[in-house]
Amino acid sequence: MSRQRILLLSLFFLPISLAAAPAEIHANPERMAQHIKALSAFGANADGGVDRVAFSEADLAARAYIRDLMREVGLSVRLDTAGNIIGRREGSEPELPVIMFGSHIDSVPGGGNYDGDVGVIGAIEVIQLLQDNGIRTRHPLEVVSFTDEEGGLIGSRAMIGKIDDRTLSVVSHSGMTIGEGIRAVGGDPNRLDLAERKPGELKAFIELHIEQGAFLDAENIDIGVVEGIVGIRWWDVTIEGRANHAGTTPMNRRWDALLTAAEYILAVNRVATSMPGGQVATVGRIHAAPGAPNVIPGEVVLSLEIRDLDAAKIQRVFDEINVEGKRIADAHFTPIRYDEIDVASPPAPTDERMRRIIAKSAGDLGLSFKFMPSGAGHDAQDMALITPTGMIFVPSVKGISHSPQEFTSAEDMANGASVLLRAVLEIDGGGLDWIQRVVELRMDEELFDAFQRFALRAAD
Amino acid sequence: MSRQRILLLSLFFLPISLAAAPAEIHANPERMAQHIKALSAFGANADGGVDRVAFSEADLAARAYIRDLMREVGLSVRLDTAGNIIGRREGSEPELPVIMFGSHIDSVPGGGNYDGDVGVIGAIEVIQLLQDNGIRTRHPLEVVSFTDEEGGLIGSRAMIGKIDDRTLSVVSHSGMTIGEGIRAVGGDPNRLDLAERKPGELKAFIELHIEQGAFLDAENIDIGVVEGIVGIRWWDVTIEGRANHAGTTPMNRRWDALLTAAEYILAVNRVATSMPGGQVATVGRIHAAPGAPNVIPGEVVLSLEIRDLDAAKIQRVFDEINVEGKRIADAHFTPIRYDEIDVASPPAPTDERMRRIIAKSAGDLGLSFKFMPSGAGHDAQDMALITPTGMIFVPSVKGISHSPQEFTSAEDMANGASVLLRAVLEIDGGGLDWIQRVVELRMDEELFDAFQRFALRAAD
Repeated sequence: MSRQRILLLSLFFLPISLAAAPAEIHANPERMAQHIKALSAFGANADGGVDRVAFSEADLAARAYIRDLMREVGLSVRLDTAGNIIGRREGSEPELPVIMFGSHIDSVPGGGNYDGDVGVIGAIEVIQLLQDNGIRTRHPLEVVSFTDEEGGLIGSRAMIGKIDDRTLSVVSHSGMTIGEGIRAVGGDPNRLDLAERKPGELKAFIELHIEQGAFLDAENIDIGVVEGIVGIRWWDVTIEGRANHAGTTPMNRRWDALLTAAEYILAVNRVATSMPGGQVATVGRIHAAPGAPNVIPGEVVLSLEIRDLDAAKIQRVFDEINVEGKRIADAHFTPIRYDEIDVASPPAPTDERMRRIIAKSAGDLGLSFKFMPSGAGHDAQDMALITPTGMIFVPSVKGISHSPQEFTSAEDMANGASVLLRAVLEIDGGGLDWIQRVVELRMDEELFDAFQRFALRAAD
Repeated sequence: MSRQRILLLSLFFLPISLAAAPAEIHANPERMAQHIKALSAFGANADGGVDRVAFSEADLAARAYIRDLMREVGLSVRLDTAGNIIGRREGSEPELPVIMFGSHIDSVPGGGNYDGDVGVIGAIEVIQLLQDNGIRTRHPLEVVSFTDEEGGLIGSRAMIGKIDDRTLSVVSHSGMTIGEGIRAVGGDPNRLDLAERKPGELKAFIELHIEQGAFLDAENIDIGVVEGIVGIRWWDVTIEGRANHAGTTPMNRRWDALLTAAEYILAVNRVATSMPGGQVATVGRIHAAPGAPNVIPGEVVLSLEIRDLDAAKIQRVFDEINVEGKRIADAHFTPIRYDEIDVASPPAPTDERMRRIIAKSAGDLGLSFKFMPSGAGHDAQDMALITPTGMIFVPSVKGISHSPQEFTSAEDMANGASVLLRAVLEIDGGGLDWIQRVVELRMDEELFDAFQRFALRAAD
């Protein structure tokens, strides 16, 4: 980075930059890659990925490895009652609230080596860098490795007090119920209240994570500044036709529910792609009854899932699909019925100040960045309910995720950890409060955009 | 029927009409309805239909009832080793081959009261009418009630020597294997060779059956003269896309196998309806994998079934679907693969002479008739391989079949039995040979059509 640009940026963000570490500190790509490689041994499968579902033997072994790593960088390690692994580093002003950062190390069945892992290894890297550079923060820091993220954000939900008995009795991929699993990793499912973090206990939460999508990789951008985790709504859509003999019912006397479903599926795609924006709409599951090759389908049930950062946009997409669906249903005399499934999660926007701090941290490091939504769910969406929360994305090659082919380069991982360190230091130095004032003054969006453009150009 | 018309028809078909019974003999609708009602008690369910799958307790009880009915009309009853119930009436020239007619009394699970039953009760009615009118045929007559029609035409396949050990080991709806079932009804699965009918043993086979479609009912026509049982080909169609996260994969970066499937299903319908003729093409089963609402389908497997009386037409429909499918697959980068399933049955045309005899019999009785294919499979398609075979259809109200709502009026059933009687007498009088000569002389089709139009008009 040229001297001139540092000067310019420093002028722009003067109050923060003075508080941040003066030297440019960069994460170590080799060290991170080595830790990722070591972690990938736990539950390694023949395809080059991992089977490390929460509470499995592989998960238990990997958790022990993470605790060791935490201790090696000087963290004092404890488990909360939800089994979340928490490594703490005291600040110079112990009464201040905690700056927390981390992710998870459990995987989906047949998962990859980066989802979650990069965020935990990156958080430990940040502590290592602080140690190596003799930096003591004012706020206490806590590195967290959440329990069973892939099984429903269990650890972070416990931290915000949202786990009920029904959730504890769900059978996880390990074969154990979630309650049994929490006990197996050393937690206490009967005292999850003790895992809750009270208002004011946390200053902020940041999660570093791979994108799991292809935007950054395709556009060759270093850092994604996550605007929020998209909301999800899900309906079961039932189409009523009339089952009949495929041999004796001529083509013009059919009420074929699957034919209507086919037009409907195309309409879903048409509506979702006809509006500007990042919304997605997916039909992932379909069942035609009775489901025999020689019977005209009398009923089709399919899933409709719509995601967007904006709840109103989700509703608008649904409304338009509904209008199209009604037209199709009427044309074929095959009524369509919707049952909304109660697994919807509302959009979880990240904290605007956190976004700006992350963007500035990337810019300070000469990295290109982009504001973007997260299409996948993350522990950060829970934490956003109790503390200012931000997320840092690093590129996933070809956007492949939940697969052994998942890959993020060592350099990209290190970029993410470097941004994480810098953001932690900005927050520690009062960045949230400074940015808060900017926000309250309604700093002109165009001015901020101009800065972002400048940072992108400078990083070229 | 007016005297004048009888004269006209008699002149037209003089050689046959002289051989047939001179009086107009009509089946008794009340008696047939009463027999159908009595038969419907065996396996009656709460919906007004029957659960009388082959080899069940209900089937065994119904079989006993049919044997009793046969004996009451003077038939001598035996079981063959396939469990087919055969009631025989000797002819005046016992060395002549047998004229056989009948159908089946087993049902699908949750079936109706007419499918098969009308053919067996109608055949017994024919014998009753011969008794009542003191008519002795030259040929021996055999009324047959086939074993397990709904489970794969088992009785008729045994009669043509096409049951192998694999079929015998298939578990039927009764819970028994087909072999065990045959034993349970009094047959001998180890000696099915004894159930085979040798060439020359049969003069002809006729099956009276409900249409199971809506043509006759919708057009208010009394009798369907079945041109043949349509051939069936069946493929599993596999569409390869790429499974991916529904949240993180934008709409324009998807290879959604279900989206391709939707276009394909519409193409199947478009091709099948764009050609003139009675062909049908059906997608009755569909599976999208992995099949989760939050995952873009990476693979879809669906069934494609095509039926027509003409094997070349089936191929033509498939070829056109294939062209359309390739275009759709290429546009979406989601290849389509076909695996033909070996359950195909070739088209089974009925005997042309039998069709003309049935048409003439209907015309003689002042009934309207129509030549039509059978979209469903029947025991007649097996019998057609060893003897001149014909089928008589009577209307199914609204075309509903394999359902408790299945219904055929007593009058329609009686019309069918009256036509059956007349056709049997025509055959007995040498009708096959006379018509054979007409066919050999390549009787002008237009002349025959003119006769058919005359019969339709006369029946108004």
